[in-house]
Amino acid sequence: MVECFNCWKIQIIGRGKKTMRVNPRTDEYPARTLENFPVCTKIASQTITIIPRYNETDQAGVVHHTVYPVWFEMGRTELLRVNGLAYSELEKNGIYFVVVELAVKYRRPAFYDEKLDLETICSRITSARVEHSYCLKRQGTGVLLAEGSSILACVDSSGRPRRMPEFMYPEK
Amino acid sequence: MVECFNCWKIQIIGRGKKTMRVNPRTDEYPARTLENFPVCTKIASQTITIIPRYNETDQAGVVHHTVYPVWFEMGRTELLRVNGLAYSELEKNGIYFVVVELAVKYRRPAFYDEKLDLETICSRITSARVEHSYCLKRQGTGVLLAEGSSILACVDSSGRPRRMPEFMYPEK
Amino acid sequence: MVECFNCWKIQIIGRGKKTMRVNPRTDEYPARTLENFPVCTKIASQTITIIPRYNETDQAGVVHHTVYPVWFEMGRTELLRVNGLAYSELEKNGIYFVVVELAVKYRRPAFYDEKLDLETICSRITSARVEHSYCLKRQGTGVLLAEGSSILACVDSSGRPRRMPEFMYPEK
Amino acid sequence: MVECFNCWKIQIIGRGKKTMRVNPRTDEYPARTLENFPVCTKIASQTITIIPRYNETDQAGVVHHTVYPVWFEMGRTELLRVNGLAYSELEKNGIYFVVVELAVKYRRPAFYDEKLDLETICSRITSARVEHSYCLKRQGTGVLLAEGSSILACVDSSGRPRRMPEFMYPEK
Repeated sequence: MVECFNCWKIQIIGRGKKTMRVNPRTDEYPARTLENFPVCTKIASQTITIIPRYNETDQAGVVHHTVYPVWFEMGRTELLRVNGLAYSELEKNGIYFVVVELAVKYRRPAFYDEKLDLETICSRITSARVEHSYCLKRQGTGVLLAEGSSILACVDSSGRPRRMPEFMYPEK
Repeated sequence: MVECFNCWKIQIIGRGKKTMRVNPRTDEYPARTLENFPVCTKIASQTITIIPRYNETDQAGVVHHTVYPVWFEMGRTELLRVNGLAYSELEKNGIYFVVVELAVKYRRPAFYDEKLDLETICSRITSARVEHSYCLKRQGTGVLLAEGSSILACVDSSGRPRRMPEFMYPEK
Repeated sequence: MVECFNCWKIQIIGRGKKTMRVNPRTDEYPARTLENFPVCTKIASQTITIIPRYNETDQAGVVHHTVYPVWFEMGRTELLRVNGLAYSELEKNGIYFVVVELAVKYRRPAFYDEKLDLETICSRITSARVEHSYCLKRQGTGVLLAEGSSILACVDSSGRPRRMPEFMYPEK
Repeated sequence: MVECFNCWKIQIIGRGKKTMRVNPRTDEYPARTLENFPVCTKIASQTITIIPRYNETDQAGVVHHTVYPVWFEMGRTELLRVNGLAYSELEKNGIYFVVVELAVKYRRPAFYDEKLDLETICSRITSARVEHSYCLKRQGTGVLLAEGSSILACVDSSGRPRRMPEFMYPEK
């Protein structure tokens, strides 16, 4: 199990308004280009720890159901990271992933400030799409709280479908 | 099409911390009990207007995908309301609806401050569950942006499954 | 009092990823350029109706305190609109407003699904900044729930300070 | 510097709907009562790491300004925790803290997925209120992004002002 918030070198470079950054990040974060991307993603699953925030609860006393997909996105980000990439690097290189399908099954409520394990599994990659499944459990007891799945499409900066980057879907 | 924010008399009475309200609402909002609930829900579909807020966008320049389920919940609330009830009244009478399944298909991005039509359809009611489907379109052009569905379970204040209220699922 | 969600013609044109829009808005929303901006803002105050959403509550049974600034931003948007402009039009013309100061005093809790009046007052405009104050009251009783203030700086698309647009701060 | 997400034993016990929990936490999390609270809070400052989430950005490409107060609340939670308490334990014992004042000065934008240091300082405690100040910096460079302050009032489960718990404001 890898904790969510380990140390890593990231490069935060975006588009458009990112030039708004008055104090640019230093060369501690050099730009990485496509050639320097990892050769291949190899790790298909990653578990992170989630601690529900107070504002994520609702007046029923549980975490609001719309928060889970936010956590799923965090899970995808960390799965990508253990494979050697920050999502922000992808965006900088004109590679965007947009969610086209999302499904969640809620089994039991999650509560404020408890420790949860979110496992994110990359279940399938095609030349245009990537599928993930998610499993949210209570730490300690391992009780299943929710399951989910999503499909992301790879698009360019204009929103047009584009081929999956080589390191995720290598040409034969 | 019914605008989302028409005038209505509501009764805001919750549980627990609601006693925190220092200035209670006046008798302009008398408590309504189960006996005074509508006899039967008759309206199965309702369309409301959604205007994406600035904070609902993300750095890709579009509405973040986790916001749509928030809108779906607003749709359910308004569908209930045109049938004569505020969800807060249900909670006050010990009737809770919890989301057990959610699915969304994202067709096209939604943008800040544009006018959208969200149609919420109650597609099925059993003695324990209620299913909705959702259709989000751009106003004017009618372009489909997203579709969704959800299943809600009826539970009591302890979270135990309970029978659907009579007015939603009448005994024969 | 002007309801928040009246009908208006807006123009949604952004930067960057906005080209992602596969189905562009029709000429029903023609682009407006600086020359066509209103000559002068004249309306200094605007009241909109706010209905707290379920996900905006927390487990204390009240609206979470971080939601109020979201509403304040909605108030500013509508105040700008009654003066003849959509904020999205400003961004399209390279005029951005960034929040540099924010203050809120919370007087009484707000509850799910009740009707609130948010009054937004433009209290001061200089060549570089605009100040607003906010007053949130319960409809019907008029009980004061919160007060706030903010200072926005005018910047260009690179985040550098720029002069306030002419129609907001006319040169003598 | 203490990372935000270290391991701790917490007790998640709330009010009301918490009975909704179908699978109660085990005795791994025994209830703690007021007598077992720490004798005195001694640590007045705590720094946690914040990583902005994708959905916390807006279409200007930066973290939306309303997210900072969410982080401040996380900072308070962790400051309380290093003093030996989970906020959820306080609520269970009928001790609530409600935000009555909030102020933020935004110096520079924060970006998606960068590492930030949030320092939370308990600057003053009276018999009824507790004041905090906040300092948000970019890790590595130490560049100041935002400063803030808040005042919290101590109330009981009915929302009435009550005396600060002994361990936070000892009687002489």
